[in-house]
Amino acid sequence: MIPTKADLQKAHNSIKPYIHNTPVFTSQTINKITGAEVFFKCENLQKMGAFKMRGGTYAVQCLTDEQRAKGVATHSSGNFAQAVALSAKNFGIKAYIIMPENAPTVKKNAVKDYGGEVIECESTLKAREATTEKIVAKTGATYLHPYNQMPVILGQGTACMELLEEVENLDYVFSPVGGGGLCAGSALAAHYFSKNTEVIGCEPFGADDAYISFTTGVLVPQENPNTIADGLRTSLGDKPFPIIQKYVKEIIRVEEQEIVDALRLHWERMKMVTEPSCAVPLAALIRRKADFQGKRVGIIISGGNVDVAAVAKLLS
Amino acid sequence: MIPTKADLQKAHNSIKPYIHNTPVFTSQTINKITGAEVFFKCENLQKMGAFKMRGGTYAVQCLTDEQRAKGVATHSSGNFAQAVALSAKNFGIKAYIIMPENAPTVKKNAVKDYGGEVIECESTLKAREATTEKIVAKTGATYLHPYNQMPVILGQGTACMELLEEVENLDYVFSPVGGGGLCAGSALAAHYFSKNTEVIGCEPFGADDAYISFTTGVLVPQENPNTIADGLRTSLGDKPFPIIQKYVKEIIRVEEQEIVDALRLHWERMKMVTEPSCAVPLAALIRRKADFQGKRVGIIISGGNVDVAAVAKLLS
Repeated sequence: MIPTKADLQKAHNSIKPYIHNTPVFTSQTINKITGAEVFFKCENLQKMGAFKMRGGTYAVQCLTDEQRAKGVATHSSGNFAQAVALSAKNFGIKAYIIMPENAPTVKKNAVKDYGGEVIECESTLKAREATTEKIVAKTGATYLHPYNQMPVILGQGTACMELLEEVENLDYVFSPVGGGGLCAGSALAAHYFSKNTEVIGCEPFGADDAYISFTTGVLVPQENPNTIADGLRTSLGDKPFPIIQKYVKEIIRVEEQEIVDALRLHWERMKMVTEPSCAVPLAALIRRKADFQGKRVGIIISGGNVDVAAVAKLLS
Repeated sequence: MIPTKADLQKAHNSIKPYIHNTPVFTSQTINKITGAEVFFKCENLQKMGAFKMRGGTYAVQCLTDEQRAKGVATHSSGNFAQAVALSAKNFGIKAYIIMPENAPTVKKNAVKDYGGEVIECESTLKAREATTEKIVAKTGATYLHPYNQMPVILGQGTACMELLEEVENLDYVFSPVGGGGLCAGSALAAHYFSKNTEVIGCEPFGADDAYISFTTGVLVPQENPNTIADGLRTSLGDKPFPIIQKYVKEIIRVEEQEIVDALRLHWERMKMVTEPSCAVPLAALIRRKADFQGKRVGIIISGGNVDVAAVAKLLS
């Protein structure tokens, strides 16, 4: 069932005290390059450095007291791991984070810094899922999924709500699509809180399961993703999919070099530390700029938790 | 002669249409680390990426019509080169920028993109000065100095004016000291536009001519600077020096490792692309945090024109 306007409003009211209403940036250089008027919602400046804090917070808030007493569990080596750890800490509950043993120490430490308990396992998806099941069975913790649960989708949608509130008369909002939580949440927000704003999903050609699913109407999982946009390698979930089908206008795909070029604009011109995934919507706008001349376009910058050396390598 | 309050106000009114009133950022992480309440004035988000745009603009605005007709000249391989080129372009006048032949192509191209004429010379200071003299003699262009001219000092001071206007009751403003333009301008701004704000200059131990000049009362040039904060390797000028002597409270020096640690906070926690020089004031605050507990401290982030790969190397 597709959530209502009231559901989304409730999610925003609930999480407000625990998140930043992140700033919206503009860049004359990028307006000149694209021919559009572009507004960047900077979730790289969100608490713990990504929009995932929104969905993580609301997922924890939707638990019953009984569930809270037993804590939460998730498997992730990315931003959702940190989001769940920090959200759990904010509500004084226990977080079990299952991470592959070869995950970077800096990511494990970030989770520990937020008070999460890191449980290591082999790096296969199978091992991760099996370990998570074991932990859930043993502790009674509630499993939180990074994008395939409605409270998470609603939480992610609040970034677009704030963007629409701050910037009037947006013609479009460009969102990256990985698992689909942010894109589906944004589409709901635009549908309920704006008259004329269309949402466009953006993904790499090297991980275009959302495009294929969207155009064929059949949800197909992503196999062997091949893209520098590591946040978008995951498969579209079956919960966000129908929302995206109903409320997203189009999905634009981009080449790897276009992602690098857009990432360079974020770093060198806008002076922002952003993840490669963040560059995908700007790359999509530049690729298709002829179709968006003079339009007011919102772009959600999804996060900034990145290895500076790895980005330097991409840009050099 | 030390400029008046009216001089500074006039500078600000003049340059306003040509510069950004840059945003002020805060970071809970950094407040926690320092025990102070810290407000960052983000001149890395200034036009052309640094506060130098302020002084460059006002220096060009202070020219007579006759001078404008013949253009401006400067020698610099850094931010002032771009600032002069862009300011000259804004007023439709010619800019001759003398740059060492081994300056990075990206810096030469940035000047050319702003419409400046790049004149190459050997990379010694002597060759740069001789070439500049020759160009000035030949063209009648007015020589603009990056920090040792009063209009430039007044222009740089406007960043601190805006910071004081936006954030009430600052106890301190920390400014980096290289040539002294920003530090002297900030000291004037605090003196004239705030009752209780003290300005503190910050520089590396490896380029501490300002500290030595300030504590001995004798202006000594910087010889063989050795610091990653490349914007601060230059010698303190004799025009900013008396202003700094009169209105700056103290100069704090920092070690190279402290600069790297502070730079990491800018990039990894605040998600900001900043130059190594920008990290010097934060490093100074952290080094001496015991003296600033509970204080409201403004920090001027001077610029963000940086080679991402070089910073990645420092941080890895």
